[in-house]
Amino acid sequence: MLFHVRMDVLLPVDMPQDVANDIKAREKAYFQQLQREGKWRHIWRVVGEYSNFSIFDVAGNTELHDLLSSLPLFPYMRIAVTPLCRHPSSLHEDDR
Amino acid sequence: MLFHVRMDVLLPVDMPQDVANDIKAREKAYFQQLQREGKWRHIWRVVGEYSNFSIFDVAGNTELHDLLSSLPLFPYMRIAVTPLCRHPSSLHEDDR
Amino acid sequence: MLFHVRMDVLLPVDMPQDVANDIKAREKAYFQQLQREGKWRHIWRVVGEYSNFSIFDVAGNTELHDLLSSLPLFPYMRIAVTPLCRHPSSLHEDDR
Amino acid sequence: MLFHVRMDVLLPVDMPQDVANDIKAREKAYFQQLQREGKWRHIWRVVGEYSNFSIFDVAGNTELHDLLSSLPLFPYMRIAVTPLCRHPSSLHEDDR
Amino acid sequence: MLFHVRMDVLLPVDMPQDVANDIKAREKAYFQQLQREGKWRHIWRVVGEYSNFSIFDVAGNTELHDLLSSLPLFPYMRIAVTPLCRHPSSLHEDDR
Amino acid sequence: MLFHVRMDVLLPVDMPQDVANDIKAREKAYFQQLQREGKWRHIWRVVGEYSNFSIFDVAGNTELHDLLSSLPLFPYMRIAVTPLCRHPSSLHEDDR
Amino acid sequence: MLFHVRMDVLLPVDMPQDVANDIKAREKAYFQQLQREGKWRHIWRVVGEYSNFSIFDVAGNTELHDLLSSLPLFPYMRIAVTPLCRHPSSLHEDDR
Amino acid sequence: MLFHVRMDVLLPVDMPQDVANDIKAREKAYFQQLQREGKWRHIWRVVGEYSNFSIFDVAGNTELHDLLSSLPLFPYMRIAVTPLCRHPSSLHEDDR
Amino acid sequence: MLFHVRMDVLLPVDMPQDVANDIKAREKAYFQQLQREGKWRHIWRVVGEYSNFSIFDVAGNTELHDLLSSLPLFPYMRIAVTPLCRHPSSLHEDDR
Amino acid sequence: MLFHVRMDVLLPVDMPQDVANDIKAREKAYFQQLQREGKWRHIWRVVGEYSNFSIFDVAGNTELHDLLSSLPLFPYMRIAVTPLCRHPSSLHEDDR
Repeated sequence: MLFHVRMDVLLPVDMPQDVANDIKAREKAYFQQLQREGKWRHIWRVVGEYSNFSIFDVAGNTELHDLLSSLPLFPYMRIAVTPLCRHPSSLHEDDR
Repeated sequence: MLFHVRMDVLLPVDMPQDVANDIKAREKAYFQQLQREGKWRHIWRVVGEYSNFSIFDVAGNTELHDLLSSLPLFPYMRIAVTPLCRHPSSLHEDDR
Repeated sequence: MLFHVRMDVLLPVDMPQDVANDIKAREKAYFQQLQREGKWRHIWRVVGEYSNFSIFDVAGNTELHDLLSSLPLFPYMRIAVTPLCRHPSSLHEDDR
Repeated sequence: MLFHVRMDVLLPVDMPQDVANDIKAREKAYFQQLQREGKWRHIWRVVGEYSNFSIFDVAGNTELHDLLSSLPLFPYMRIAVTPLCRHPSSLHEDDR
Repeated sequence: MLFHVRMDVLLPVDMPQDVANDIKAREKAYFQQLQREGKWRHIWRVVGEYSNFSIFDVAGNTELHDLLSSLPLFPYMRIAVTPLCRHPSSLHEDDR
Repeated sequence: MLFHVRMDVLLPVDMPQDVANDIKAREKAYFQQLQREGKWRHIWRVVGEYSNFSIFDVAGNTELHDLLSSLPLFPYMRIAVTPLCRHPSSLHEDDR
Repeated sequence: MLFHVRMDVLLPVDMPQDVANDIKAREKAYFQQLQREGKWRHIWRVVGEYSNFSIFDVAGNTELHDLLSSLPLFPYMRIAVTPLCRHPSSLHEDDR
Repeated sequence: MLFHVRMDVLLPVDMPQDVANDIKAREKAYFQQLQREGKWRHIWRVVGEYSNFSIFDVAGNTELHDLLSSLPLFPYMRIAVTPLCRHPSSLHEDDR
Repeated sequence: MLFHVRMDVLLPVDMPQDVANDIKAREKAYFQQLQREGKWRHIWRVVGEYSNFSIFDVAGNTELHDLLSSLPLFPYMRIAVTPLCRHPSSLHEDDR
Repeated sequence: MLFHVRMDVLLPVDMPQDVANDIKAREKAYFQQLQREGKWRHIWRVVGEYSNFSIFDVAGNTELHDLLSSLPLFPYMRIAVTPLCRHPSSLHEDDR
């Protein structure tokens, strides 16, 4: 099941660099694991912002919430989730 | 080059059915041609709305504007374009 | 799977009464069928508005979109969908 | 009498963990008591956010304000209340 | 039980004068009946707008919705309802 | 002359309790004096928020600004003022 | 007593030219009368919009509402009123 | 003197094609005259919208308003004007 | 050349009183100098807010920016500038 | 390829002056280098705000993101990017 997610990262400007680096390193590890598992299907940077648009492919609402709220950056992000479905005129078999 | 596009279709509720059908048929034909050419790379329906999120893969800003403004539904849509770029931690070689 | 849906009905003020009545009668029949099937699990009127908050219990995003876009009032509604999940501290076994 | 309530929790990111845990433990105890009393009739998590949609069933406006402003998380929440009423076409006798 | 209601009247600018007058006459009659019954407790015009702030004193949410949706101007108004309760420091016994 | 005022109190969550209590005690004393003088004619709590809707009856704009900016909570409030006038169809002689 | 008023004129694009001209001629006559009486103290055009910022100097809220709602363009305007008072550091005796 | 102007064109979808064409032809002629005179210094299309960002270089506010309100498309546009000034670190002598 | 300026002062609530007083004293001196020079032509307090509406009469955009950004309160204000021009039906010769 | 960028600088009011000066000095150096390279093609100050409108001329989305996220002020700015294209009626050969 597909979901569109916009994430805006709002790290406090006075967060010590090593604390920020540690959070980002754990975020990256977890994020790449979810990519390998096929759950975090797409991610793109928004030009000029510390934000991304992502597509998740998960079993349902609960799995998505569990994934998102486990992100190390979760307490520092504004997140907006939009449920998606396949477009009837899409030619791409795998347009998930 | 990748762009995120949200399209909201706002057809007048009193548009005659055959006029609407004609516009939609031409839209579908053009839309599938752009899919085949690899320019309209992804499209997903927004659940509960007459709207979609799409990803375009084009040579640049001008090509994107030409494609969008040639859509038969263009006069009836609200369109929002966001330029994207590859995320540095993405594992997908083809995450275009 | 649960979804929170807000629907705002925006019938044109100059729609002939019999046209409006026909749409509403078909809406009511379909709506009650979905209630009987357990898919439209809750509905409440918003006080002072021609709007409702509803809870849908469906197999997934696609089923929800199919149900909503089949509503006779769909072309006249503004709809906002929010995916839900069970709250970890809820005591109600059936708080679906 | 039914009310729709959206709660967004906005804990300061630098709140000490034990202070946060204490507030959350007291919140949970009070919240479950209100569930048992039938006043906090439904609660659902909003996917991807530290937020919930709830349905309260109380004697009136004053009781609702007293319940909400007594929540241990009250000083850290943005709350929006919408009064509800039964939908005339609802088939559920107990759609409170 | 008290409710704060803001009403914005949005009559179409091309509504025939006699139709508008008929609606307004019926609105006034109903409005004054509700005042006499003590249910429409206060009303004030917003300076420079075709709008009012009102205070209703009713048995509950359902009665308020029934009153508002029966207003002859209801199809032409944007209405926002806010539930109120007595302020603990108010000195006015009857500050309903 | 009547004015509608919405006040939202935004005390910092880390304000020491005794400082907050002192401000609130002075606010209450001043507020009750203005009630006794007939200037703060109505006040109602907004359910679920640390906010109120009030009606002031003052000689004019300047007096209202002087009263509001003298409130001990003034530096911690967001205030919105709307000038009112009597509604022509009001039956209440004293609907001030 | 001073009030800041923003007016945005929203004439329907299909209004016949002579109807528009008649409304504007009556508006101008009434507007200049109010200027002569000292009640419409200032008016400035907003560059690039069919809008103005104005300062009214009237006896109070009711007079202002009567003036504004009598404007021939009133049914075609969005109006926002803000009550003003003299600034304590102003050097202009007549900064009304 | 420089001004940033955003123009959104909102032609009614049911405007006859020849009427639209006539307006656009006159708009283009006037627009190119202003370019030649150096007053409409820059114009760029917003990708995916019937909108532009422009830079005007005029003697002052009044000249700008006269130019904009003389545009044949003026009654069909939403226009937002922002006054600009030279940036102190700009290296371009002619960054007007 | 005339400009409409709205200023909202947002002093941090924990700024030491003597620091605030010093800034305000310098603001007042500079503000009164600009009044004497005829550049800060009007100022009015917004009732109930720490805000003002002002009219500046300056040589152009650059002078206005220089004046505003030199205000001692500038780092603590949200400022919105709107260019104005004379209204064609104004009777006041000096309605600058 | 052209992009319109609005930047709003939001330096914390309590940032030490020398820290702010260091950031601004590095920002200026980098900014002037980008001007010399022809990538930061235009910049204008927004009157009354610590903001600018800029036009970038870059190879594509990725280069723009790299430039913007390398700005020393990047962590302290709100940035909005809009892709542009040449207007078909523009007479300026170089209206990039």
